[in-house]
Amino acid sequence: MTDAPMTAQAASTATAGDILSSHLTAQAGAFLRALPTAVGEVGARPGAGVVPPAGTADLLRAVRRIGGLLHTFGATFEQTWAQESRTELRWLLNLLALEPGYVRRAARLLGALDALSGSETDGAGMLAGHAGVPKARALLDRQLTLARTRAHSTVLQELRSARLHALADRMTLLVADAPLLEAAGGRAGAVLLPQAAAAFGALTASAQQLPLRRAATPYGGDGLRRLGAVPAARGEVDADAALAADDAPWHRVRILVKRARYALEVCGRPAVELDELDGVLGRHQEAADAAVTASTAARTPRITPATAYVLGVVHADQRLEVEAARYAFGRRWPELPPGLDGWLEIPPAEGWGYTPAPRTA
Amino acid sequence: MTDAPMTAQAASTATAGDILSSHLTAQAGAFLRALPTAVGEVGARPGAGVVPPAGTADLLRAVRRIGGLLHTFGATFEQTWAQESRTELRWLLNLLALEPGYVRRAARLLGALDALSGSETDGAGMLAGHAGVPKARALLDRQLTLARTRAHSTVLQELRSARLHALADRMTLLVADAPLLEAAGGRAGAVLLPQAAAAFGALTASAQQLPLRRAATPYGGDGLRRLGAVPAARGEVDADAALAADDAPWHRVRILVKRARYALEVCGRPAVELDELDGVLGRHQEAADAAVTASTAARTPRITPATAYVLGVVHADQRLEVEAARYAFGRRWPELPPGLDGWLEIPPAEGWGYTPAPRTA
Repeated sequence: MTDAPMTAQAASTATAGDILSSHLTAQAGAFLRALPTAVGEVGARPGAGVVPPAGTADLLRAVRRIGGLLHTFGATFEQTWAQESRTELRWLLNLLALEPGYVRRAARLLGALDALSGSETDGAGMLAGHAGVPKARALLDRQLTLARTRAHSTVLQELRSARLHALADRMTLLVADAPLLEAAGGRAGAVLLPQAAAAFGALTASAQQLPLRRAATPYGGDGLRRLGAVPAARGEVDADAALAADDAPWHRVRILVKRARYALEVCGRPAVELDELDGVLGRHQEAADAAVTASTAARTPRITPATAYVLGVVHADQRLEVEAARYAFGRRWPELPPGLDGWLEIPPAEGWGYTPAPRTA
Repeated sequence: MTDAPMTAQAASTATAGDILSSHLTAQAGAFLRALPTAVGEVGARPGAGVVPPAGTADLLRAVRRIGGLLHTFGATFEQTWAQESRTELRWLLNLLALEPGYVRRAARLLGALDALSGSETDGAGMLAGHAGVPKARALLDRQLTLARTRAHSTVLQELRSARLHALADRMTLLVADAPLLEAAGGRAGAVLLPQAAAAFGALTASAQQLPLRRAATPYGGDGLRRLGAVPAARGEVDADAALAADDAPWHRVRILVKRARYALEVCGRPAVELDELDGVLGRHQEAADAAVTASTAARTPRITPATAYVLGVVHADQRLEVEAARYAFGRRWPELPPGLDGWLEIPPAEGWGYTPAPRTA
């Protein structure tokens, strides 16, 4: 709403369609402004920074919000159009997030290795001076650089594709005229609140399925041992499958937290608690991904035992980070209201949309 | 005091010497009763159980208490005799604790490996199905069995030594007549309290030097990263030295907790809080020792990378246990009174020694 503020007067009489169109116009505009910059950035350099460059970050931000809005308030849009748009936005999201993801993962893993092998006077690590550290570092660096380079080529290629042009055209149309259904003519509260409530309901239901009580007790070893139920049909239990199955519900909750965040933004409400939860689950996901990279690297043929040993320590260290993130989530979650109360309750006197939402990524 | 209860009447007029003699008589008697059983146990079998057999456990219990008493209330005894006795008791303690220590360490490390590689439906670990697990297990088992066998031979040999006979003679004399100084003729409260207070003061001072605030925040990574200051004179920082330097103050506090416990027992006071702290720091020490064993095993020549990787995970897992024990200590410590208040305050009406202390190891 920061991009398209309304007066209190206008807001109090707004229809659902007004609110949604205003949001979509703002975000589609942001998309179109960020797109050429992002394409230029990707084309100009192989992306070395930890933070994605400004254009790509803005583009990702708009893509996430438009996709979330089309999902949460889907009942208000023409179904086929909304579905297709979401598919194309998800494609672009996965594409754009790939390279910065590898950059962040490299920073995380090499940073962890540096901390574990640090030799400062009051910050030495359990791998200080270990012969395997330089080799493990070089191996991780090489594998992640390779993955990033591959991702970069893919992105470069796709950014010239007809598919992206089609998506840009779709966004251009959206700025002018979102394909709303008749229902969008209703009062914002009556139309949007139930849909936002459903997003919060989905979040609450999924979060309550998480082993939160266990996670809120520190040092339960849950990220390393006692992983969740593994699909029995697989027969032989393999650690990768067990870890993936253990992490999956947390990744799912992260998606639902993001959707709830974006729904709050549409309602013009601050979403500080959800921002924090999103950050915690973001750390969870990055640590889980980094752990997979470490354990995969340890399976590289012909590495030395010292290298493999160091990668074992790094793998466990990242699983410990996973456990720490779950602990942080478990501690924060119960502080949140169980449902919509307090978050989505909109005093009729105030109406919609004139509480500016903080601008966050 | 359970072994030599006094009536309230006798207790209220007891001298420091009465109290100490009564304790020493009881513990030296326990020593002499347990000694032949312990010798028989060590001779009979190579000690396979996790818990040391009854005779050895009783002997260790008496040795710890006599040694603690001679340390804390040392000013009441003939100096040379007390010093020599403590040296000999410490020798026997280290000797007897060696073999059960290896048995416990094997149970801890193999148990950790089993948990980390577990494949039960709701308890799979991050090493489930990993090719290196059976080899790492066999390696740890072999190295610890070897260490235990060596320790067993040493104990067997020393239990037939003149040194042990001399110590037994010393304990026989102690049953009859502890070499007390004149000061022991004073009232129990006046003589013993300041010495017990000094033991508590030493504990408090050492505990306050620990990074308790950091330890009380879970997942600070303190057991793995950010290890304490390493002696600068060593030049090149090596992880073993850094870990040992980081653990040492915690091990020291454990000794002081034990001394304070035994001082409370002499005062006939319950020591539940100290029992718990002792248990927590016992876990800390065992995890730290097990971590060293894992990292040493990883340096075995000609192991496979898969074995080394698994040992890296186990090493990190045990350092995580170290961190968890510090967290548990940091959480409990502030609940304890900062000094002697409430622990050693002895109402004059009740006098000394007739509150039976719970019999604990």
